[in-house]
Amino acid sequence: MLVHTIKDVREKVKEWKKEGLVIGVVPTMGALHDGHASLIKKAVEKCDRVIVSVFVNPIQFGPSEDYDKYPRTLEADVKLAEGLGADIIFAPTPDEMYGEGQRLSNDTLTYVAPPFFYVNKLCGKSRVGHFDGVCTVVMKLFNITQADYGFFGQKDAQQLIILRKMVNDLNVPIELIGCPIVREDSGLALSSRNKYLDEQGKKDALALSMILNNIKACYDKGVNNISALKETAFSFLTEAHELEYLEFVDKDTLEDKETADNNTLVLIACRVQGVRLIDNILL
Amino acid sequence: MLVHTIKDVREKVKEWKKEGLVIGVVPTMGALHDGHASLIKKAVEKCDRVIVSVFVNPIQFGPSEDYDKYPRTLEADVKLAEGLGADIIFAPTPDEMYGEGQRLSNDTLTYVAPPFFYVNKLCGKSRVGHFDGVCTVVMKLFNITQADYGFFGQKDAQQLIILRKMVNDLNVPIELIGCPIVREDSGLALSSRNKYLDEQGKKDALALSMILNNIKACYDKGVNNISALKETAFSFLTEAHELEYLEFVDKDTLEDKETADNNTLVLIACRVQGVRLIDNILL
Repeated sequence: MLVHTIKDVREKVKEWKKEGLVIGVVPTMGALHDGHASLIKKAVEKCDRVIVSVFVNPIQFGPSEDYDKYPRTLEADVKLAEGLGADIIFAPTPDEMYGEGQRLSNDTLTYVAPPFFYVNKLCGKSRVGHFDGVCTVVMKLFNITQADYGFFGQKDAQQLIILRKMVNDLNVPIELIGCPIVREDSGLALSSRNKYLDEQGKKDALALSMILNNIKACYDKGVNNISALKETAFSFLTEAHELEYLEFVDKDTLEDKETADNNTLVLIACRVQGVRLIDNILL
Repeated sequence: MLVHTIKDVREKVKEWKKEGLVIGVVPTMGALHDGHASLIKKAVEKCDRVIVSVFVNPIQFGPSEDYDKYPRTLEADVKLAEGLGADIIFAPTPDEMYGEGQRLSNDTLTYVAPPFFYVNKLCGKSRVGHFDGVCTVVMKLFNITQADYGFFGQKDAQQLIILRKMVNDLNVPIELIGCPIVREDSGLALSSRNKYLDEQGKKDALALSMILNNIKACYDKGVNNISALKETAFSFLTEAHELEYLEFVDKDTLEDKETADNNTLVLIACRVQGVRLIDNILL
């Protein structure tokens, strides 16, 4: 069932809660692909009722980012989510979420602000305010759906770590389930932003997963010096790649690692054809 | 029942939710007086189960404020709250609330940040970060108790308006109930900080309610010019008073009023014997 208002979601949730049903929420920005599908499947498996939200959240985009051109494919999203067993597809307007004519800034809106140490690195460094916007909208979705479980992809690794921290710090009564990255056969991590790439771009984009796989292979062979592991990346990079970061951090705390170990998460962000792509791997 | 851990509260709440009981929460910093008692009574009246939290919240005090010397009277608080029918008195340690050895700053903790326009005035101007600390701890308490109703005193008027804004902006599934200011026969608004005052201090403190009552009397007689109404205050102020602010704002949005009307909230903050006292009245 496609639903556009908070009130309609709340009414359904109230019914379900009365019946003691377990509720799952899958927050998305739509343009659903097989990565999202894996989250929805997992949610349907684990919960009695599943709400998939489809909302391109304006407050998590910077002024020079792709909010306006971000792909919107609601009709197909509803079909996919319902086909997989989702009970509600919640697709609100920005006005429904943030109030009509509201100025979308922390001058006039209450924000959830994740810790500086978690934000001031990796994607947060180039995307100022991004994770404040993510935490704020996700907190709203958790409160609207009162879900018992929330499902998120491991692809947005920093996001998932920050959301886990939020749930812990603010005692949100929900359990977060992280789901593995889904990839094309080529190795390319699925992303709604892959739609911006042409054939050549998709080929060039393979560098991300190749770099990560190669680092893991080297680590598995015994290399744990991070500088050495980083250097292996350069053979995959061409003029088509604008590397933003390649970092080795603790998988739970995002603290920089001095030496690679089994708790090390390797994250990469790189622009191809102007499109910002990310990927990661656990060593 | 006195409870010190989040886990114990959650267990009780889970039981109550299963039975479909309506839960109320009364967040306090302890040192309970008749003002708190009125909140607890209201909660017991309206809800099936009532949780009173007693927690002097470190993150809402500035470095030069009275966190250490803030009155702590847990034994008496428990007696009072239980006598009024509270089911749980939740008195956690700072470590229980924020994690052991955690640095209590937005470097390492997720915060709820109320809007700048609501914070950068009145008490927020002199108490930088105060309302971030309040919103964060109250959000935690709402999440821990999963209460249907939260009870707050109208005395902390700016706090109540900011918390209502938080509940609205973040879609928190709770309804806030504001309760009238409780006063001594003399007119002095009850406050845990009144304990810092000696006899003379309590006499001097009467200026706050006298100023507000006089402003309301003048308004009722037809004066709506704010400068004129403000000027009436000075006849009550002596060398014993250090006025911090006397402001006329909208009762819902905290926007400055140009002319006094029935939606105008008049707020005063004034130091007496070094003790910061606040009071307010609706015109």
